[in-house]
Amino acid sequence: MDIAIFGTGIVGRTLAEKLVAQHHNVTIGTRSPEETLARLDADSMGNGPFCDWHVQHTNVSLATFAEAAAVSEAIVLATNGGGAVASLEAAGAENLGTKILLDLTNPLDFSQGMPPTLSVVNTDSLGEMLQRAFPLVRVVKTLNTVSTQVMVHPEAVAGGRHNVFLSGNDSDAKKSVGQYLQSWFGWTSESIIDLGDITTARGTEMYFAFWVRTFLASGNPLFNISIVR
Amino acid sequence: MDIAIFGTGIVGRTLAEKLVAQHHNVTIGTRSPEETLARLDADSMGNGPFCDWHVQHTNVSLATFAEAAAVSEAIVLATNGGGAVASLEAAGAENLGTKILLDLTNPLDFSQGMPPTLSVVNTDSLGEMLQRAFPLVRVVKTLNTVSTQVMVHPEAVAGGRHNVFLSGNDSDAKKSVGQYLQSWFGWTSESIIDLGDITTARGTEMYFAFWVRTFLASGNPLFNISIVR
Repeated sequence: MDIAIFGTGIVGRTLAEKLVAQHHNVTIGTRSPEETLARLDADSMGNGPFCDWHVQHTNVSLATFAEAAAVSEAIVLATNGGGAVASLEAAGAENLGTKILLDLTNPLDFSQGMPPTLSVVNTDSLGEMLQRAFPLVRVVKTLNTVSTQVMVHPEAVAGGRHNVFLSGNDSDAKKSVGQYLQSWFGWTSESIIDLGDITTARGTEMYFAFWVRTFLASGNPLFNISIVR
Repeated sequence: MDIAIFGTGIVGRTLAEKLVAQHHNVTIGTRSPEETLARLDADSMGNGPFCDWHVQHTNVSLATFAEAAAVSEAIVLATNGGGAVASLEAAGAENLGTKILLDLTNPLDFSQGMPPTLSVVNTDSLGEMLQRAFPLVRVVKTLNTVSTQVMVHPEAVAGGRHNVFLSGNDSDAKKSVGQYLQSWFGWTSESIIDLGDITTARGTEMYFAFWVRTFLASGNPLFNISIVR
């Protein structure tokens, strides 16, 4: 399958690595491929520059957001929250069409220090902002409640017995994304919970405030929640 | 033990019932006992008036917030979020002293319709507001992540294998509250997670936005989360 990943950070790289290992055609989208490859510093999390990673992963293409969207069937949005809308604007509605967008972002605001706050809460969400800006795109918010390693290795936590959530307005798109989570990353069908329409992204985005404090209390991001009854 | 419960709604009643069954001396605090007993309508959730409940539970005392606080060793705050600070002001710093306050509230705002939004987020929490207003009181935020039945019947969900959280500045108070959760309500020591100081209440309060959507997706409030690794 031809898959675009928007974002050149650790999330985008980790997802790309997992997907090319399964023989998908992966194109990472960025604002300017030249500038991305010219950067030589580590990011604020200490991850090395993209160019170092890319020479080890030559089977992953790098292109503009527009080019990556144009050649792909589905788009995985893994930019930082602040760059999410701009990345879709750069991709262009004509290249996004009615494609499925897996929205993995959270509206994190680091300007108030650590832990980050959320720039949108309560009566709106980043997922809804994306859906409003691109009404034809089939936005499905998912995977934004877990750390990168848990996204692609759900089996590494409690043998995979924990949950991931879907928020979106298009039932078929949610069904497809549920299948992607299973075939791409190894989530089980029992682990996937459909919360409802895209407004339910308010819940999983605000959940970040809880996630980050649970993370800080233990220092280990390799955890998740299991909904139990 | 002499325990005050602030709040005459379904949470306060359910907790009182559980505690008197264990032979604790429970005093429910309210603004005006006369007015509470004079109310004859069901509340917005369809729960009958307090007076009907009270004739069935004559071993629970009803008093003003101040009287209830004065005669009790620990205080359980189970008012609605909007009335939380006012209930402590009515109780008075002289009656609250350095007592332990189990803060079960969430800052729910129903003015935007359903589901409720949160009136304080990101850089403050209701737990912190209470602690700032009464610096000597030992506030421990807890049980605000589960429905009333789960609070007092943790064993009814997944055999009790799920989690409850503590946020507070006083380690001894958190230790005591952990023991109260076990002896009063049947939570296990393994189920109790200390998130840190009272600012971590921002996490469990904002978690409500996630909780309510998980509830609405299933229609059943008898669930909780288990943190798995």
